[in-house]
This record gives sequence, C-alpha cells and structure tokens, in this order.
Amino acid sequence: MSKVLAINAGSSTLKWKLFNLPEESVIAEGMVDRLNLPASVFKLKLANGEKHNETRDNITNREAAAMVLTRLKSLHILEHLHEIVGVGHRVVAGGEEFKDSTVVTPEVLDKIKALSAYAPLHNPVQAYYIQTFQTLLPDATQVAVFDTSLFTEMPPVNYMYSIPYEYYEKFGARKYGAHGTSHRYVAHRAAEILGKPFDSLKIVTLHLGSGSSITAFDHGKAIDTSMGFTPLAGVTMGTRSGDIDASLVAYLMQKLNLTNVEDMIDILNQKSGLLGISELSPDQRDLEEVQDSNPKAKLALDIFVNRVISYVGSYIGKLNGIDALVFTAGSGENGIELRQNIADQLSYFGITVDPDKNNVRGKETILNKENAPVDVLIVPTNEELMIVRDVERLGHIS
Amino acid sequence: MSKVLAINAGSSTLKWKLFNLPEESVIAEGMVDRLNLPASVFKLKLANGEKHNETRDNITNREAAAMVLTRLKSLHILEHLHEIVGVGHRVVAGGEEFKDSTVVTPEVLDKIKALSAYAPLHNPVQAYYIQTFQTLLPDATQVAVFDTSLFTEMPPVNYMYSIPYEYYEKFGARKYGAHGTSHRYVAHRAAEILGKPFDSLKIVTLHLGSGSSITAFDHGKAIDTSMGFTPLAGVTMGTRSGDIDASLVAYLMQKLNLTNVEDMIDILNQKSGLLGISELSPDQRDLEEVQDSNPKAKLALDIFVNRVISYVGSYIGKLNGIDALVFTAGSGENGIELRQNIADQLSYFGITVDPDKNNVRGKETILNKENAPVDVLIVPTNEELMIVRDVERLGHIS
Repeated sequence: MSKVLAINAGSSTLKWKLFNLPEESVIAEGMVDRLNLPASVFKLKLANGEKHNETRDNITNREAAAMVLTRLKSLHILEHLHEIVGVGHRVVAGGEEFKDSTVVTPEVLDKIKALSAYAPLHNPVQAYYIQTFQTLLPDATQVAVFDTSLFTEMPPVNYMYSIPYEYYEKFGARKYGAHGTSHRYVAHRAAEILGKPFDSLKIVTLHLGSGSSITAFDHGKAIDTSMGFTPLAGVTMGTRSGDIDASLVAYLMQKLNLTNVEDMIDILNQKSGLLGISELSPDQRDLEEVQDSNPKAKLALDIFVNRVISYVGSYIGKLNGIDALVFTAGSGENGIELRQNIADQLSYFGITVDPDKNNVRGKETILNKENAPVDVLIVPTNEELMIVRDVERLGHIS
Repeated sequence: MSKVLAINAGSSTLKWKLFNLPEESVIAEGMVDRLNLPASVFKLKLANGEKHNETRDNITNREAAAMVLTRLKSLHILEHLHEIVGVGHRVVAGGEEFKDSTVVTPEVLDKIKALSAYAPLHNPVQAYYIQTFQTLLPDATQVAVFDTSLFTEMPPVNYMYSIPYEYYEKFGARKYGAHGTSHRYVAHRAAEILGKPFDSLKIVTLHLGSGSSITAFDHGKAIDTSMGFTPLAGVTMGTRSGDIDASLVAYLMQKLNLTNVEDMIDILNQKSGLLGISELSPDQRDLEEVQDSNPKAKLALDIFVNRVISYVGSYIGKLNGIDALVFTAGSGENGIELRQNIADQLSYFGITVDPDKNNVRGKETILNKENAPVDVLIVPTNEELMIVRDVERLGHIS
C-alpha cells in the first residue's frame, strides 16, 4: 500500500488529495484558499467525513504546503512523511514539449518555468510547489501532469491558426488547449461505463464550469478542443469572452482610450463572459435564479447554450459522426436545466436527455433516452485521480 | 423598358452592370481597375460579347464614374443619360440602422458616411460614388443596398459577443456580417431551383472566394453568419485569418515589437489566411497546383476545408437540421475538388456530391446524389441583380 499526493495549485488556491494505491481510495483531501491574503482558509476533510478548518491571515504558498503535511501527521493520517512515495502536480502549460506526464528532473523544472509565457498565472506557482515538495518530501517521486499533453496529439489542421506560418515556428503560436486532464479522464471513463473500447468511439466531452472547454475525441485521440493559444478562446465562460472577432481588440481599445493591449485582454479574461453580458454574475446559478425577470441574465445563459451547441455541431462535423456526449465539471455535472436545453437543441443529431434520468447532480449517469443513437452521460471529473494514476505509472509505484 | 445601373465599388475598383428592366437582361457591364494608380484599366463588355478596353494612368474615382456613362453613350448603348432611371449602390456597412436597402436621401448619405468606422475602406468611397452619380444622373433614383441588412434580422443570441454589455450599447460592438447581398440572392435562388418555399427551408450558404463567409437561414431568416464585427472573423480567407484566440493579438505584438494594435490587425487582414500559412499565395488555385510537393500549400488548403466543415457543422447545430447546402462565389462555384472534399467530410449529415454532376464550373447545378437527404447546389452569385431588383422595388420602377 502506497500513499500518493495530488497537488492542483492555482494562483491563489492549493487543492490537494491524498490517495492510497493501488486501491485508489482517498485518505484525505483539502484546499488552502485566499493564499497570501487576509483570512486565508485551510480546509481538510478525512475519508470518514471529519473536517478540520483553520483561518489565518496571509498563509504563504510555502506555509500552505507545509501545513498539509504537518496536519496530516498531527491527525495521525501519516506516521512518517516518507509514507508519501509520490507527488503528482498539475501543470497548466506544457507547450509542444511535454506529450505526456513526466517525472520531474532539474531539466523538466527549468522547462516548466520557461513555459510560463503561456500560463503566467499558473506555471510559476506550480513550479514553486514542485520545488517546495521536493524539499519537504525528498524521497518522493515528483511527477508533472500537464493540462496540455492530451492536445499534443491533435493534427496540425486543427492546432494551426491561419496566420503567418513563421509565428508558429518562431513564437509557438498554435492552439494548446487546456483542461486536458479532465477531458482525458471523463472520455476514458465514459467508454468504461459504456463497456466499449475507448479507441472505437467518437466522443465529445463538455467540461462546463467557470472555465469551460469542449474536446473532440476520434477513436481514442483528442483531435480538437475549444480553448486556444490560451484559455481565453472557445465558448463563453464565467468571466472570459471565448471567441470574438480579433479586430474588436483594436476597436475597443480605441473606444476605451486604452494604450496597453494587455489591459484589453484582461477585460476579455476577467470582465467578459456571463459576467459581462449579464452585468450581474459569472455564476450560472445566480443567473438562473433571476432569468425570468432579468433579460440580460437570460441572454447570458442563452448565449452560453448557443456557443456550446455551436461547438458540438462543429465537432460532430469534424468527427463526421458522434457516439457519445459527456457532461462534466461544475455546470456540466449539476446543471439539470442546462443539460436539458443543450440536448433539446441538438435533437437533430440524435442527442437526447431523459428528464427523469437527468434529474441528478454530480453522479455518473447515462442520460439518453432508450434506444437513442448517441450515448449521453454525466461523468464527474476527477483530475486528481488522473494525476495519481500518472504518478503510479511513471514512478513505478506498486 | 427601364435601364438601371448597379454599382459595386471597392477601394480601388469600380464594378458596374447596366440592366434592362423588367427583363433583368444585362445590356453592358464592366469594371475600372487600379483606380488612382499607374496603368488604370477601363473594361467594358456588351451583351453580344464585344469588348472595349482602355488603359490610362491614374483614373480617379470621379473620372471612372463619368467614363462609364460617356462610353455607354459613344457606343450608342444609351442615346440620352436620362434613360437610366435608377442607380443601385452596394454599401458595405449599414450598421443596425439599415434593415433593408433604401432610397438615398441627404440623411441616408450622412448616415452612410457616419458608419465609415465599421468599413473604413469601403463606406467613404461608396458614399462618394453615390454623390457623383447624383450629380451625373440627377433624375435617376439612387438606392443604397447594404451588405449588412440581411443580418439585422439575426437574433441577439447570435449577434452579441460575450463581452461587457455596455460595449454593444455605447460602441455598437456586435456581429454585423458581410456578403449579405450574395447570401440573400443564392439562398432565395436555391429555393426557387428546388421548387420549395424559401421560408420552409433550413439552408446553409457558402460564399467561398478570396473573402469567404457562411450563413445559416432558418425558415427564411438569416440567423447567423461567420463574419463578425468586421470581415476579419470566420473561416480562413485569402489573406484574412478568420477566427483566432484574441490573446494572440497581444502575444504577437510583443513578439513582433509592435506598439500599434492596428498594425497587428493589418497583419491579420492582409498577410494571414491562405497566404500566411502557405507563404506562397492567397489564391486556392495556386495552392492546388503545387499541393503535392508543397506541404504548407497542402496544409493551407486542408485548414480552409477544415474551417468550412467546422462552420457547417456548427450551423447544422444551431439550425438543428439542414435541408440545403449552397456553394457560391469564386471557389464555391469553380472549386470542383474543394466541393468534393467538403461534402466527403460531411457525409454523416447526409451531404453528398455526385462526382459527375460536380464536374462543372460556375453553373447553376444540383450536385447531390439521388435520394440524398440534403440538397446540395451551386448557385453562381449575382449581387448586381439583387441590387437592381432593390432599385426596382424601392424606386417603383416599371
């Protein structure tokens, strides 16, 4: 029996899960929120449901990492730190370099830092946690699991933009995608649930959360995804615009008297999407509550469904078919009305949702009507499980 | 019998066609090319095939307009200028204001000029020709025919971007589309050819030329189109990028040391698309010739087909069905291999092309295989005919 830790670090949060292998059972999990801010919160939950929360000002990234380990010891979840034989780290940007997860070496760490240009809010802090856990757990194998690896198998026809070719060669301007670990997990799991070989299927996976992306799998390979060079592109998101006419960047800068293009991109990343349209909230639940009396909230929700429909149709086109449609992430797992709306508008493709089966949140479920030609499923995402499986595989842990 | 002139002015060209109404027969047509440049060319062709060409340096816009009329007189096509009872002018940008073509009044002319921000290369010169022909033909009714009118009937869910709502209210940031006159003509004509009521059909029209756009018609209404706030958006074009991740604008500006965002948008408009990918030519015919030995030319062609497939799938999704697919414009009417490739990749939707029927260029043709569920057609576009029909309708010409 081996313990492996999965680390999923964002710019101001540290999410973690401790697994027992090979059972893949979760021993404990938690999150440190509001890092480096007043009233940082440390949350820990044990397998038996027991919870331990602490609030303290300005917990630093290093302290957060150390706290996870010391609390696990003080709660006697661990007797010795060296019981943790491996740590898997989610890394957002792996460029074209990392076609698979990899054991961290000094060279790998340097490359993760060098790829920060593609994910300035994530790669630096994720590299920092790798180094921190190397110090705290010197005997454990550290594995980097990249959000982008899945998409290095896309064909050029889908990852190349229609811009001067040299911008790809010189500057790496191409589609990298994101959410790869989630799409990979739910696509494989959907095939398992259906009892069909993964590489026999055409699957479209909908990761719909505050960030949303859609991926097309053709016989086991991810062939296209809606996020682009960065996570700004694709469908409407909580605060991100998704696809727009690029000439709007110049037009709006002029209208808004902006001189720095980065300020405009910040608006598209942080003040757009559902929040921008509704002028109310980036959260679909807030908008659903008021949609009957608030036309902009209703419009924002309708546009979100519209953009999802648009990508699903586009990917059925690119796949020239579809066997299964998979919903995952916050809204995908819990949005009962959302799933119904999406399926209703895609009925031409044989996509259905049985209202009774659909009356469920966050549970693996087959949703389609009986004998419908396309399988429609909810598969709750589990990036952490995917991460520890990669640690197990690459760290030769048994 | 009434003579009506259709004027289609670009930044450096003046295309025109003189029609007899109500027969809709073309009496003469021509083009003045390389305006305000050395070796301007004036071309005129009569209905009997007779041609008259002249080359002269620096023909101005005003001279070009006058030459059309004086040559028609000297060739005895016209005895008196007042035989021309109406002039229809293509205008690229009509904003939200112009939901239909309209007789030109001083107020209309002012608004066309005021909309120049949306089409800086077109509206000013088109307004200039309206004024010039008002002077040259003071008794003729002048009618403005907007590329964008068709798209004022789109629903907000398709024309709104996922950006702060006030940018729409204050700055008119929305999807306006383009090529409306062409899409309108070929969609109506396709229904006629099929002998079905236009408002009973779900139609996708593919205007594929050096500029390309795709429109979805739902029971007689244009509900979405691939061009956006400007003609930069949508599918890959000759020199235009079509859709990209907006954050590439900022990233590439930094890599290219550009300080003016307009310079970046110029690159996306003028040095991207097929030209940018292939590093060879914006013309599909050039690329088809060398595709077997030139991987970048092949990639450019493949990406073009890929983006068309993507939009057709997306619009079948938004329409939740499709009855007819219509090819038009240069590549759409003449690209035999292109049409075959597109249909082959959309076979899942019941879209077919019979290779024998498809072996044709620039002719109204029904292409699909017998008993196929989707009608597939070539309809050569005829914007000028659409323009004179609007002059006839609005100018009460009989």
